[in-house]
Amino acid sequence: MKLQVTQENLNKAISSVAKTASSRSTLPILSNLLLKTTNNRLSVIATNLDIAITHFVGAKVQKEGSITVPARLTQDFISNLPNDVVELELEDKKLHINSKMYQSVINGISSSEFPVMPAINKGQSLSINSKKLKTGLSQVVVAASNDDARPVLTGVYINGFNGKIYLVSTDSYRLAEKNLAPAKTDFSLLIPASAINELLRVMGDAEGNTTITYDDQQVLFKVDEIELVARLIDGKYPNYRDLIPKQFETTITLPKSELTNITKISALFARESAGSITINVDEKKQEISIHSVASQLGENTSSAKAEVKGGGVVTMNSRYLLDALHVIPEEQVVCKFNGKLDPIVIASASKNPDYTHIIMPLKS
Amino acid sequence: MKLQVTQENLNKAISSVAKTASSRSTLPILSNLLLKTTNNRLSVIATNLDIAITHFVGAKVQKEGSITVPARLTQDFISNLPNDVVELELEDKKLHINSKMYQSVINGISSSEFPVMPAINKGQSLSINSKKLKTGLSQVVVAASNDDARPVLTGVYINGFNGKIYLVSTDSYRLAEKNLAPAKTDFSLLIPASAINELLRVMGDAEGNTTITYDDQQVLFKVDEIELVARLIDGKYPNYRDLIPKQFETTITLPKSELTNITKISALFARESAGSITINVDEKKQEISIHSVASQLGENTSSAKAEVKGGGVVTMNSRYLLDALHVIPEEQVVCKFNGKLDPIVIASASKNPDYTHIIMPLKS
Repeated sequence: MKLQVTQENLNKAISSVAKTASSRSTLPILSNLLLKTTNNRLSVIATNLDIAITHFVGAKVQKEGSITVPARLTQDFISNLPNDVVELELEDKKLHINSKMYQSVINGISSSEFPVMPAINKGQSLSINSKKLKTGLSQVVVAASNDDARPVLTGVYINGFNGKIYLVSTDSYRLAEKNLAPAKTDFSLLIPASAINELLRVMGDAEGNTTITYDDQQVLFKVDEIELVARLIDGKYPNYRDLIPKQFETTITLPKSELTNITKISALFARESAGSITINVDEKKQEISIHSVASQLGENTSSAKAEVKGGGVVTMNSRYLLDALHVIPEEQVVCKFNGKLDPIVIASASKNPDYTHIIMPLKS
Repeated sequence: MKLQVTQENLNKAISSVAKTASSRSTLPILSNLLLKTTNNRLSVIATNLDIAITHFVGAKVQKEGSITVPARLTQDFISNLPNDVVELELEDKKLHINSKMYQSVINGISSSEFPVMPAINKGQSLSINSKKLKTGLSQVVVAASNDDARPVLTGVYINGFNGKIYLVSTDSYRLAEKNLAPAKTDFSLLIPASAINELLRVMGDAEGNTTITYDDQQVLFKVDEIELVARLIDGKYPNYRDLIPKQFETTITLPKSELTNITKISALFARESAGSITINVDEKKQEISIHSVASQLGENTSSAKAEVKGGGVVTMNSRYLLDALHVIPEEQVVCKFNGKLDPIVIASASKNPDYTHIIMPLKS
């Protein structure tokens, strides 16, 4: 292997994939990056066995080849080099990296030991605007579960249903649903939230479209010069649609920033009670107030003017409410509920919001 | 106690002192802030028994009084309030904090339980430009030791000697000395580096002068509306002046940014060898190169053009060299040494640098 590449391009590629390489794995090769020449391009690849990310870089290849090198050292070294031409040359298993005043030798491990994920054959494909996909995924992934006891809840459910593509996550305490785009067919993909988070990270400010190709086992995202392959989660996603209430006794409309402020302050006093805050809705005063108690330390009541229909009291986890508010882009939000026991709906106050977040109430 | 204060001023005061309050102390009251009215001012005070910081805030005091409240909750609450008038009112041991739409009650502990540091009586005083003092202290504190086995080395030594005020720190592997200002008298103060770091933090962008008042036991820094009291370290500071070499066989002059870059890159390959890097000086080529070896992972040689007198090889800890370069403000630096065993001097290349950093070489 012998090639020349700019520091800027090589650094960009290594930075985007290196986080996937883990130094904590029991398999040491997983802390390495695979460098591989193909058709005058250099592929920089990292995997953690659940996902694999490839970043392609334009290079002047003089001699084909491949090697794996320690991700952290290589990333730190390349990122500190000045923006100049970098020459990579493999001699035996030693990778010589030279750039004007900087000469390094990095000891590699043979690329034959690097675990490669199987290719997707005869897959289905769809194409979605990258910006739209990124926004939608980041709006729902927050509601996915971290608890491996129910694997299906640790996924983001991408499905075509009744002519629409939906993105959904739920950890059973809250649920987020995005109506993303028109769908040509019905389909179901259950993708690990960890893979979606990696995808969101490497997408950056991608323009254009993302191509999603899938079979029964795997899904491949292609966006600009990046490819991410992930294993699908096996299992049936819960039939969540009936959980979302359609009618509401109480509706509160107010600026997102105001609701965020009073929730944040209430949350400070709710640390000892696992985030529990109680919302009081006063139709007469056209006001909502949030009460929270830190048994040893004190208590707080924070209020805000709101457009209120109906009244009542409901208790919920302040972190869930803040997470929901954080991913709603619109400035005016609506919070709707039916008494103390039914799910609470948070959404944009616009006429037909494409994003719905529901939160299960806490007993108070 | 009953008073009104602006959120902005109260937040500034609490933010500057709250870090000193520690929730990890075995004495729970040390995680509290003391709030105390004095002459139409509110004092906000935190202590960790080694130092105490007071920040004064202008307030409209209706009723004098004092109370201690949990630092973290109070800071988080006040910092999240909108910039408006905040009313504090003490009822029994409950502090009511009200601001328009936000009502809180924080449970306090009586101020009589708060440990107060003794006042300085009949102390000596000196006054130094705050910006100059801040720069000087931050240049030397980096060389102080963290090892409590030799307490005097964990201090910053401020001394008047031969008509000059010097700031000095050494951990016995390196030494930093700043010639700060003219001195009217000889004096010696040995102040814990931890107190100096707190002082640097709370000084912010202070203009004007800092007053330093001291007796045998304590030192008090007054800067703007802040007072910091620290216990002095007991003990005799080593006679360091003879350690600084005056003549050199080898002198290297180059831009600080270049030396920083090649040291940083060498340091990446020196992680496994405790930061050990070897500098080679080539008078013919007018070049220095730094070599480092990561036994398992590889090795590196990074070079830079320099103005070189003499030649030779010396090995040192890359972190110490980076620390020294980081605190030298000038753009051109000089690195001087005598063979492999004598201390290396790093300084600005200006004619009479007021700051000298020396590093003991490593065996190579």
